[in-house]
Amino acid sequence: MNYHINDLPERTVKPRNSGLTMVMDKGLSLRQAEDFIEVGGEYTDLIKLGWATSYVTPKLDEKLSLYREAGIPVYFGGTLFEAMIVRGQFDDYRRILDKYKLQHAEVSDGSITIEHDEKCEYIRKLSEQVTVISEVGSKDVQKIFAPYKWIKLMTAEIEAGSWKVIAEARESGNVGIYRDSGEVRQGLVDEILTQIPEESIIWEAPQKAQQVWFIKLIGANVSLGNIAPADVIPVETLRLGIRSDTFEHFLKG
Amino acid sequence: MNYHINDLPERTVKPRNSGLTMVMDKGLSLRQAEDFIEVGGEYTDLIKLGWATSYVTPKLDEKLSLYREAGIPVYFGGTLFEAMIVRGQFDDYRRILDKYKLQHAEVSDGSITIEHDEKCEYIRKLSEQVTVISEVGSKDVQKIFAPYKWIKLMTAEIEAGSWKVIAEARESGNVGIYRDSGEVRQGLVDEILTQIPEESIIWEAPQKAQQVWFIKLIGANVSLGNIAPADVIPVETLRLGIRSDTFEHFLKG
Amino acid sequence: MNYHINDLPERTVKPRNSGLTMVMDKGLSLRQAEDFIEVGGEYTDLIKLGWATSYVTPKLDEKLSLYREAGIPVYFGGTLFEAMIVRGQFDDYRRILDKYKLQHAEVSDGSITIEHDEKCEYIRKLSEQVTVISEVGSKDVQKIFAPYKWIKLMTAEIEAGSWKVIAEARESGNVGIYRDSGEVRQGLVDEILTQIPEESIIWEAPQKAQQVWFIKLIGANVSLGNIAPADVIPVETLRLGIRSDTFEHFLKG
Repeated sequence: MNYHINDLPERTVKPRNSGLTMVMDKGLSLRQAEDFIEVGGEYTDLIKLGWATSYVTPKLDEKLSLYREAGIPVYFGGTLFEAMIVRGQFDDYRRILDKYKLQHAEVSDGSITIEHDEKCEYIRKLSEQVTVISEVGSKDVQKIFAPYKWIKLMTAEIEAGSWKVIAEARESGNVGIYRDSGEVRQGLVDEILTQIPEESIIWEAPQKAQQVWFIKLIGANVSLGNIAPADVIPVETLRLGIRSDTFEHFLKG
Repeated sequence: MNYHINDLPERTVKPRNSGLTMVMDKGLSLRQAEDFIEVGGEYTDLIKLGWATSYVTPKLDEKLSLYREAGIPVYFGGTLFEAMIVRGQFDDYRRILDKYKLQHAEVSDGSITIEHDEKCEYIRKLSEQVTVISEVGSKDVQKIFAPYKWIKLMTAEIEAGSWKVIAEARESGNVGIYRDSGEVRQGLVDEILTQIPEESIIWEAPQKAQQVWFIKLIGANVSLGNIAPADVIPVETLRLGIRSDTFEHFLKG
Repeated sequence: MNYHINDLPERTVKPRNSGLTMVMDKGLSLRQAEDFIEVGGEYTDLIKLGWATSYVTPKLDEKLSLYREAGIPVYFGGTLFEAMIVRGQFDDYRRILDKYKLQHAEVSDGSITIEHDEKCEYIRKLSEQVTVISEVGSKDVQKIFAPYKWIKLMTAEIEAGSWKVIAEARESGNVGIYRDSGEVRQGLVDEILTQIPEESIIWEAPQKAQQVWFIKLIGANVSLGNIAPADVIPVETLRLGIRSDTFEHFLKG
């Protein structure tokens, strides 16, 4: 850090198992990726190339090299997995992971409907090849699961081999663990945390109010996902209680 | 594309007559313009330097050269045309187009009130010098035209020489073809499409929900405008049905 | 300017005492800072490194050098001052200002509660070291001051040595002089202006509607703060009446 401030909450350091920040890159240029690494590299634990943006983004190889050299694991968004599964291209998908030397992959069912056993089977198979992150929750605002269901799904996916489970929110932050309005479904989150170890979950929290909410609930070292590249520094200050939204919270703590 | 996904909708290629993406640059630096070209150049058919930002943007000549070398036509936003017309500077305006070697110009009346005959006269005159894009619809939320009026205006402007007509939405996407809330005026759009050839219209659609709406209505190759530079990749995935919002739509198709 | 438009409002030039634009940098990389200077440097009078982002931003020294070479004064956000005051680190804070060769500092009490006399004492002390900008208004949506209170606080802070007083709005623009919704508290602003010289106030106005409101009320040369780097060009066009929102206003004027 650039100078000393007394009594700040302690942050985990890389390689982090909790307190992760997962950033969504939805089409940065090479130079923009370098800029992001310069500023946010130390605070970023995972980069998701949002949904299937990797399909159309130029210079993908070079971008993956940049992130690899910076020591930040990258994975393709779950919607790409789903787009290929639904077209019967699972083997192609595995080859793409190899071709791009990816060490992580996301398994999700936000846009497709598959049996949960089948989803877990994909998690099992991909776990032999890469580190799997799986996502629970639909991208459809109509599909709302009861808390016991979230817990059941998360438990099964962790048992099937998922390193972390992601609680779905989309880029916009208004489905899954959030209401339409973007507000957190607090009872749901509380209940999930009674059964699933906190460090196994990455909460998608693209909006500031959501980041604040989770930091206040779980602490500086909550794992947050779908953070915009330009928001990594702001999120880090929220975790440390040096932005007004969490200022008082950490003084009391 | 970086790998193969089966059964995606076919996209038109450059030079496109339909399926255009028009991007709004409201003050990129030279390096930012280069970054945008690297990522979005292939997917971008037109660049608008928003309203009169070209008046105050430094290094305008160099920026125009960058876009010219990338083969992407640029034009100045219609508000500049209007600011000069209302000050009796039409001849100055024509000289500016020449000075900056522009091949395209926008004629609009979103902020001024002129007779439609006069507007068409400007379209006719400018058509002798450049390719004209004309914009229909007021930037004033109070001024709501009936569908027959939209059709009449668009028809006259195309006859006067407009290459494409743009359906106004502003950068914010809450006027013209949209309600205050940003929601599309669906009946209006349906009625326009009964009379005006789809490929003659560029729909300003700065918000994701609006892009999704037009892609679902018209298809992968609808022409969309006022796209932010960072949204060109996301828009391309929407067109291809590889983002959740249009995922199911194109599976069914 | 790149070409000539007749009858535009006259803008003050650097070094400006009114018509200032204060930009918030919340974590730009060095290259992004250069890009911002290229485009917005001429139009930017002050840069705030938002709240305590300077604590976690890499290459802080190099960034400050860039801004120094561009001739744009920089200061650290008031929340950093508050974070150190509340921890009894005022002397450390003064040393940090020296270490980074800052010529400006912000004194605020948006997140802490201190007696106003004490705040003015900090303004007095820091005024001996740097140019002080002080901020009035809480970041807490619950804390709403009556107009006479705003005037009393601003007057005392100017007397204590503040060069300018800032009317609080946060990055989001929904507290202090704004309602929850982001709408301006018009009666409050009118009343403040009866007592405080207009050129002593910087109005935080991160949202376009707020910028438009103040430009219409006070004119092209109102001082605006918390402007995003990418919005400097758009704000300049609003000041000149060459964007639709203020187009008609300046024609009439």
